[in-house]
Amino acid sequence: MITAAERDAVLALYADYGWLIDEGRFDEWLDLFVEDCGYRVVPRENLAQGLPGCLILCENKDMLRDRVTALREANKFNIHVARHLIGLPRVTRAGAEELAVEASYSVFQSDQDGESRLFSVGSYLDRLRLIGGVPRFREKLVIVDSFAIPSLLATPL
Amino acid sequence: MITAAERDAVLALYADYGWLIDEGRFDEWLDLFVEDCGYRVVPRENLAQGLPGCLILCENKDMLRDRVTALREANKFNIHVARHLIGLPRVTRAGAEELAVEASYSVFQSDQDGESRLFSVGSYLDRLRLIGGVPRFREKLVIVDSFAIPSLLATPL
Amino acid sequence: MITAAERDAVLALYADYGWLIDEGRFDEWLDLFVEDCGYRVVPRENLAQGLPGCLILCENKDMLRDRVTALREANKFNIHVARHLIGLPRVTRAGAEELAVEASYSVFQSDQDGESRLFSVGSYLDRLRLIGGVPRFREKLVIVDSFAIPSLLATPL
Repeated sequence: MITAAERDAVLALYADYGWLIDEGRFDEWLDLFVEDCGYRVVPRENLAQGLPGCLILCENKDMLRDRVTALREANKFNIHVARHLIGLPRVTRAGAEELAVEASYSVFQSDQDGESRLFSVGSYLDRLRLIGGVPRFREKLVIVDSFAIPSLLATPL
Repeated sequence: MITAAERDAVLALYADYGWLIDEGRFDEWLDLFVEDCGYRVVPRENLAQGLPGCLILCENKDMLRDRVTALREANKFNIHVARHLIGLPRVTRAGAEELAVEASYSVFQSDQDGESRLFSVGSYLDRLRLIGGVPRFREKLVIVDSFAIPSLLATPL
Repeated sequence: MITAAERDAVLALYADYGWLIDEGRFDEWLDLFVEDCGYRVVPRENLAQGLPGCLILCENKDMLRDRVTALREANKFNIHVARHLIGLPRVTRAGAEELAVEASYSVFQSDQDGESRLFSVGSYLDRLRLIGGVPRFREKLVIVDSFAIPSLLATPL
């Protein structure tokens, strides 16, 4: 069973996850991942059919760091702000050192004219590692319902 | 007053409610309701004017089971996935055996081409029964702001 | 550090904030603010560039009361219902009497024909005052990503 303190820490982790992306605070966002993390963005269709294709595949934290660097460059050409609304996380498995957590997400984008639109909806299927009671992402799997993504997938989902 | 454990159980119930629909896990979703449950979907306009018309009316769990069966058939002709984002639930009344809970919801739909759009927004006005500390839906009232629903209302809101 | 009871009270405050607006219960909504409160709605662009322009500026609770009165008049000409979906709040600073809290929001509007659309996304940067353990808004800063607002900004964000 998960303790109340652990559950609060899980809520805080997901609040931080979306907020730090939307504020462009990517160094702090990287701190939410362990060094041997995985981060994958997969169309729901591929997952359902057992196809291996990913939109993004990072097999460790260095690949995620590279991604952030690329993002900082790419953002020069496709300027927008993202806004994450993340649903209540479900803790589906709780061990002494690892948690399995699921949550739905929606991401909106606003362009430089202040026009906003729905960008992506989907879900997170994550494994968290507890480090001194603080949860960090060990495996983050982003399953994208909206795989017909209407513009450059630069900002993380 | 509600205990911290009950509040956590309420958060978990609403997280489960949306997630199990979106994943198509309707048998587990049915488990969230008591046997003598009610489930109604009502346009906000009707409720405001005291009109009795419902979009969906299930007066017990067997009617809800029928609904799920129908849904599994209907989905063959209107294939999409739903994605619920449910706001923080408000517990407005707490008795020893029953809770009154309100929450806002948004539901997005994604079609087979991976195009996503807003499908419905509205609110839940629910009465929960506590069974050994575990909350289950006794009366679920879905009040739909978006009553001009642009396609078949198959998946539960 | 924030206590578990304070955190639950913060969650409840944000759930109330959106719900009371959406239900048009503005007198109860006003009760969520202290008398010497501030309430500002600022386009994200202005904030980023240090420009002072606000969409709404209320420097105390009387100005907010005026705003509610105006809103009740304005709503005669632009009838819609709002629906807030507010993300998990982040408590970023906690003192004995004051909390700093951040959250993302999305607001949808539905018109009299039951058509719903995305109205605004953005974030809250708030300072709360604890009054006997109950948090109330001391400063509410609404940062609007969607500053190209497609219709009258009447209902509070």
